[in-house]
Amino acid sequence: MSLIVQKFGGSSVADAERVFNVAKIVTDTYKKGNQVVVVVSAQGDTTDDLIEKANEINPNASKREKDMLLAAGEQISISLLAMAIEKLGYPVVSLLGWQAGFQTSSAYTSARIKKVRTDRISKELDKKNIVVVAGFQGLNKYEDVTTLGRGGSDTSAVAIAAAMNADLCQIFTDVKGVYTADPRKVENAKMLKSISYDEMLELATLGAQVLNNRSVEMAKKYNIELEVLSSFTNTPGTIVKEAAKMEKMLISGVAKDTDVARISVLGVPDEPGLAFKMFSRLSAKKINIDIILQSIGRDGTKDISFTVAKDNAKEAAEVMEDYINTVGGKSVSIDEKVAKISIVGAGMESHAGVATKMFEALYDAHINIRMISTSEIKVSVLIDEDKADAAVKAIHSKFFDED
Amino acid sequence: MSLIVQKFGGSSVADAERVFNVAKIVTDTYKKGNQVVVVVSAQGDTTDDLIEKANEINPNASKREKDMLLAAGEQISISLLAMAIEKLGYPVVSLLGWQAGFQTSSAYTSARIKKVRTDRISKELDKKNIVVVAGFQGLNKYEDVTTLGRGGSDTSAVAIAAAMNADLCQIFTDVKGVYTADPRKVENAKMLKSISYDEMLELATLGAQVLNNRSVEMAKKYNIELEVLSSFTNTPGTIVKEAAKMEKMLISGVAKDTDVARISVLGVPDEPGLAFKMFSRLSAKKINIDIILQSIGRDGTKDISFTVAKDNAKEAAEVMEDYINTVGGKSVSIDEKVAKISIVGAGMESHAGVATKMFEALYDAHINIRMISTSEIKVSVLIDEDKADAAVKAIHSKFFDED
Repeated sequence: MSLIVQKFGGSSVADAERVFNVAKIVTDTYKKGNQVVVVVSAQGDTTDDLIEKANEINPNASKREKDMLLAAGEQISISLLAMAIEKLGYPVVSLLGWQAGFQTSSAYTSARIKKVRTDRISKELDKKNIVVVAGFQGLNKYEDVTTLGRGGSDTSAVAIAAAMNADLCQIFTDVKGVYTADPRKVENAKMLKSISYDEMLELATLGAQVLNNRSVEMAKKYNIELEVLSSFTNTPGTIVKEAAKMEKMLISGVAKDTDVARISVLGVPDEPGLAFKMFSRLSAKKINIDIILQSIGRDGTKDISFTVAKDNAKEAAEVMEDYINTVGGKSVSIDEKVAKISIVGAGMESHAGVATKMFEALYDAHINIRMISTSEIKVSVLIDEDKADAAVKAIHSKFFDED
Repeated sequence: MSLIVQKFGGSSVADAERVFNVAKIVTDTYKKGNQVVVVVSAQGDTTDDLIEKANEINPNASKREKDMLLAAGEQISISLLAMAIEKLGYPVVSLLGWQAGFQTSSAYTSARIKKVRTDRISKELDKKNIVVVAGFQGLNKYEDVTTLGRGGSDTSAVAIAAAMNADLCQIFTDVKGVYTADPRKVENAKMLKSISYDEMLELATLGAQVLNNRSVEMAKKYNIELEVLSSFTNTPGTIVKEAAKMEKMLISGVAKDTDVARISVLGVPDEPGLAFKMFSRLSAKKINIDIILQSIGRDGTKDISFTVAKDNAKEAAEVMEDYINTVGGKSVSIDEKVAKISIVGAGMESHAGVATKMFEALYDAHINIRMISTSEIKVSVLIDEDKADAAVKAIHSKFFDED
């Protein structure tokens, strides 16, 4: 008998038919003699409706009340799924985040799970119940309802799997698994049978939003085997596990991120601590910087470019304007028509020439590279946004079609 | 500084505009230096939507899961009301039933409040917060969400008022107060300034559904002064309090109940324990009997008629068929075209001739009385349903227009 945690997102429970589809998957797993804990998100349109109601009344409502409101969404989906499982004739009980023992930090709308007290879940499993748990939500030390922020239900599922030492944590989604590139864009994108935690982390960061990052970090920390699979097709998905357990591929995927803007600061006086002084002002505003490019000094000045998320571009530029107004400098500009293309692969660590191969692909496709950034298992380049899809195709073809 | 509990039903918070209307009433009360605890029901259409979703999936879902689902309704309305109060610039916190300390019996969908642990509410009031509490819901000993059944939010409000020894419990509704008759039917129906708990109880039972009965019983037990008033007009309502504290009116109202059917069992052998034997069969099926009429015996047989709620009529008749099939008897018939008209008044106890005056009004209006039932503060008659409105008018006019 195995303990399996299964997580279903909002689109998997969007309507009655899909709720029954999930109930079928869950009960099939249970029928095989497994203990099953199911984590569910709110139905997609429920969340939208609730946000609309809130905005109509007070767009600047406190985060505490927003969490109170949104948490009603999972309450609805867990009870509906439980009702569907009852209809199929299986014993089931639904549990809210706090009933399932989710203790979180106090930060409303983006709380972190501190602990899962699993007494109640264990008790229900002992009673042979299928346990349906509300994802995305918990309780802080004030006994107030909190939510975990974007992708929180993935984290809820992995947290339960970790706390209960589950044999497998299945993340059901609307894609069949993790692909070497976006399959809607790249015709011969291949589904991976397995991928390491680190590669998955890099891919998630790079905009291949299959799994929430925090959930992968947690799975890595507690060594929980994840499976990403589709709730609509009955086929095995991609296993996310320790790198040591798998054959290393050269690269595991090509990812595109268009939520990026480049800020250029030109003609800044070249003095010690320049980068520190500039970037500390940005971190004070909680603006994250990604790729940084610093020109070689000339005439006692330097040019510095960096990328930020599009949402932060305007504020970052303003901070830089302030900076050159006090310290000196020529100009600040924003370029939002850029995209970041990345390749990720644990294989890079041991194989030379991976970056070169990527650059060659771009050169062959006549795509200009504006900035470059590298890590142990990742190479990212900044290019013009309108070349993004062509770049992904060219790189993917270079690495995978030659096989 | 007074502690005031205010309760608003589903129609009072039906949309954003009404939510703000409630927020205005609440903050006006707070501004005057009062501590305010607000109890809210789910928005009317939310409950309907949730029930529809459930029925689509499993009309025979367990009561536990139904409660889990429905309780999401108040979670939505309390957070929205809190957001509106925030928007008006006042400190506020919303609390779910369990957070507000509602401990209930285990009976899902019709739980009874066992205790309200008021620590959290007190703490929030100490912090100068307006406290918005989810009505209708609580937690049972299994730490499962329960709901209180129809009209439960009234009971929630009175329970908080009792537990916290509140100075006043205001039940806001869509009528201005308690009337001597249905104001939509009887032109010169008068609003009562006050009414006793017992009279209110009789009126509620009789179909003048202004206040939920359990809430009035609880208010009587803990001597909580209630005020029934409109959330749409800024005028004083009807105070419900101890009879001793008020001037007794001869009668306080005329009520109509058309949810009634008469079952007649004819020609039953007249033997000792007849009524007991018949009615114990009905109580075994949880069918409540209201008015009973037993004919004087003739030829060793008797005729017995009684009234039940329309929903129970068919089952009651079947039970009676079974009865005459085993014990003997002539026939069983159902008459659903009847209505019960009642007058209620604490004044009856000390004034003779109240019933006579009622019968006189009906005689003058040529309305035939089929059955009669009386209690200390109530006289009820069963008449043809199509005469019901005319009967209420005639009786109301007899008692109130002569003043």
